[in-house]
Amino acid sequence: MRVLLVGAGGVGTAVTRIAARRDFLAHMVVADVDPGRAEAALAALGERRARFSARQLDACDQEAVRRLLVDERCDVLLNATDPRFVMPLFRAALEAGADYVDMAMSLSVPHASHPYQECGVKLGDEQFALARQWEQSGRLALVGMGVEPGLSDVFARYAADELFDDIEEIGVRDGADLRVEGYGFAPSFSIWTTIEECLNPPVVWEKDRGWFTTAPFSEPEVFEFPEGIGAVECVNVEHEEVLLIPRWVDAGRVTFKYGLGGDFIARLKTLRELGLDATAPVTVRDADGRAVQVAPRDVVAACLPDPAGLGERMTGRTCAGTWVRGTKDGAPREVYLYHVVDNQWSMREYGSQAVLWQTALNPVVALELLATGVWSGRGVLGPEALAPRPFLDLLGEYGSPWGLREER
Amino acid sequence: MRVLLVGAGGVGTAVTRIAARRDFLAHMVVADVDPGRAEAALAALGERRARFSARQLDACDQEAVRRLLVDERCDVLLNATDPRFVMPLFRAALEAGADYVDMAMSLSVPHASHPYQECGVKLGDEQFALARQWEQSGRLALVGMGVEPGLSDVFARYAADELFDDIEEIGVRDGADLRVEGYGFAPSFSIWTTIEECLNPPVVWEKDRGWFTTAPFSEPEVFEFPEGIGAVECVNVEHEEVLLIPRWVDAGRVTFKYGLGGDFIARLKTLRELGLDATAPVTVRDADGRAVQVAPRDVVAACLPDPAGLGERMTGRTCAGTWVRGTKDGAPREVYLYHVVDNQWSMREYGSQAVLWQTALNPVVALELLATGVWSGRGVLGPEALAPRPFLDLLGEYGSPWGLREER
Repeated sequence: MRVLLVGAGGVGTAVTRIAARRDFLAHMVVADVDPGRAEAALAALGERRARFSARQLDACDQEAVRRLLVDERCDVLLNATDPRFVMPLFRAALEAGADYVDMAMSLSVPHASHPYQECGVKLGDEQFALARQWEQSGRLALVGMGVEPGLSDVFARYAADELFDDIEEIGVRDGADLRVEGYGFAPSFSIWTTIEECLNPPVVWEKDRGWFTTAPFSEPEVFEFPEGIGAVECVNVEHEEVLLIPRWVDAGRVTFKYGLGGDFIARLKTLRELGLDATAPVTVRDADGRAVQVAPRDVVAACLPDPAGLGERMTGRTCAGTWVRGTKDGAPREVYLYHVVDNQWSMREYGSQAVLWQTALNPVVALELLATGVWSGRGVLGPEALAPRPFLDLLGEYGSPWGLREER
Repeated sequence: MRVLLVGAGGVGTAVTRIAARRDFLAHMVVADVDPGRAEAALAALGERRARFSARQLDACDQEAVRRLLVDERCDVLLNATDPRFVMPLFRAALEAGADYVDMAMSLSVPHASHPYQECGVKLGDEQFALARQWEQSGRLALVGMGVEPGLSDVFARYAADELFDDIEEIGVRDGADLRVEGYGFAPSFSIWTTIEECLNPPVVWEKDRGWFTTAPFSEPEVFEFPEGIGAVECVNVEHEEVLLIPRWVDAGRVTFKYGLGGDFIARLKTLRELGLDATAPVTVRDADGRAVQVAPRDVVAACLPDPAGLGERMTGRTCAGTWVRGTKDGAPREVYLYHVVDNQWSMREYGSQAVLWQTALNPVVALELLATGVWSGRGVLGPEALAPRPFLDLLGEYGSPWGLREER
C-alpha cells in the first residue's frame, strides 16, 4: 500500500513511527506545509526511513494534493491535519481516485437562530453530501478513524454485535490524569481543535428526536476512569461519534462527554467571553507597526506549548472509551470498553506523547486492515460500518490492547 | 498656553472636550498615529474647535515629536498615550524645552530573581533618572497627573497638609459599579494598561522597609465605596501612587488597591496562564497565510470593544479616592477623600464615558493651574509636590466636585 500522509504535526509524526514498524506499508509520502516538519518526522525514523519520503504541500491547495496523489501513485490519503483542511483533502482524494482516511470530520456551523437547541450544519454533513459520488467512484472514504472518533466507534459496533441484544444508551467518555511539569496550562492536544469541540454547541442523538444541541458543558457527571485514572468531571461536547454511531448502530441515545475538569472549562469560558476563540481575523499592528489580520484562536495556539513537545515533561495516562447500557439475554447490562495509554510507555517505546500516539495508532491499524483486504468498502463510511473484531484483535498485536469493564 | 496633546484615544478625546470649555487654552495641537482619530476628536467639538488643530504623529519617533513641539511653539506636551510611549515623549519634551504632563509613568521591569518580594526597575524610575536634566533645563515634568495617579496624589498631600498631624497609612482605593449592557466582559479602560497594572507584581511602600513587591492580587479586602456604589473586593496592584506619594508625603505605609472583583481577577489570571498577556511577539499566520509577528496582548485588546465606544451602553459610577489613617490633635482619625463620576452624567454633559472622562479631567485642571501661574515648578514632580487646595477648588468650578467621608 502506498500512502500520502498529509500533516507532520504531533499526530502525523506518531503515524510515521507506528507505520514504520509494520510490513503492510510499501511507501508513505509525508507532506506538510512546512517541509522542515516532514523532514524532521523522517529523520527521527532512523534506519526505518527507507519506505518514507518528505514533500512540501499546502493542504488547502486541492489541485496540488490531487496531483501529488496521482504522481506518487498513492492508494490512500491519510489526513492528519486540523479539521479545517478536511474538505480540500477529501475532494482531492475523490478526484484522484484514491481512498481517504481522516480522524476528524468536516466542521459544523451552529444553527442561526436556535444554536443551543437545534443543529445547523452538522459535523461531517459536507462529507456525507458527497457519499453518492464516492459510491459511484468505487472508492472508500473512511471518516473519523482516530481514537475518538474511531476506536470509540469500533467499540460501539462491537457492543451491538457481541455484547447486547438491545442498547439504551451509548456514551463515549474520555478522561485522563496527565500532568505537565512546569506548566499551569498545557493542553495535551491541538488547542485549535479543543476549542472547536468544546465551545460549539454539544450535539446529542435520541431515537425519538434525532440530533439536537444543548448549552455548552451540559449534563455534567463524574465518571470513574479505569487503570488508576479515577474520577473526572465530564460534560457534553460536540463530537463526531454522536453523528456517526446512529447511522450504523441501533441505540436509544448517543452522547459524548469529555473529562475536561472544572479548571479547564473555566479557561475555555474565559476565551469565549473575551472573543479569543474566534477564527474570523481581527486587525492588529505587527512587530513592525503594520496592520495585519490574524485569527485570535491562532494566536492562542501560538502562545501555548506545542503538545507534541510536552511528552518528556508529562506523566499519567489517557483513556478513550465507550460506555454502553442495555440488555443481554433479558438481563440489564452495562459495560465500559476502553483503551488506555501511559505517557511514559509511549514516550519510551515511540518517543510520542500519549494522546497524540493514541490518536495515530488507530488509522494505522485501519490502513493495515484495508491493505490486507480484511476491511473493504465503498462510499463514505464510519468505523462502525466495518467488522470490529479484527480491528480490536490487531490492537493487541500492536502492543496496545483494549479493556472491558463490566459495570453491573 | 499652547499645548501638544499626543494621543486621541478615549482619554485624549475627553481632554479636548474638557479643555475646549476653558479660557486658559490658546491652542491645542491634537496628534495621533491615526490622523482620523485626531480629526474625529476635533469634529466632535463643533463650533468650539477653532483653537484646535489635528496632526499625524508617531509617538515613538522622538525627533518628530520634538520638531512638532518647536514648530508649533508649544509650551507643554500632554501625553495621553499608552504608558509604553512615555519615554520617547518625555525625552522629546526635554529636548524641545517644553513642559511635560502625563497620566501614567515609565514602565517597570520585575526583579529578575525575586519578582514577588523585591522591586526591579520601578514605575517612573526611567523618568526620575532624568530629574537633574529637567531641573537644569528649568522646565517642569509633572508626572502621573491623571485621576489615579493624579487626583489621588493631590488628596494624599491635602490630607497631610490639612487633615492629619501624623499619617499611619495612605491607601488609594478605586472601585465602580459600572455595567455594560450586552457584554459579558467589557473593560471600561484600556485593557493593555489594565493587564500591565494588574499582572505586574504589586508594589507597597513602608517607612522601615522602603519599596517591596508582593504576589499578584495580594491582601484582598472589601472596601465600601460612597454614593451608592457599595462594597467591592479590592486587591493590591502595581500603581504609580505608591512610588510617588512617599517622595513628598510623610506616611508609615502606602498601598494601592483596585476594586477588580473576583470575576475580573479570574479572567486576568487565565490570560496570564495562557501567555496572552505577553507583549513579546509570537509568530502566527495571517489571513493570507503569511507568517507575521504579533504581541498576544495587542490581540486581546483587538478582540475587546473600544472602551471609548461603550459609554452609551454603560450605567453606573466610578470612584477614585484616597483613604488615610492617622492622628489629628492627639485623636485617631480616618478619612476617605474621593471623586465620583456618574457615566450618564459624563455622557450627557461631554459625550464621554465616565472612566475616561475622569482620567482626562485632572490634567486639564493641572494645565489651567500652570497656565495661570498658580502652580509652578521645575524638575520631575508628582502631583503631591504642589499645593493641593487650588486644585481641589478648581474641580468644583469644572462641575465635578470631590467628597470627604469621615470613617471614624
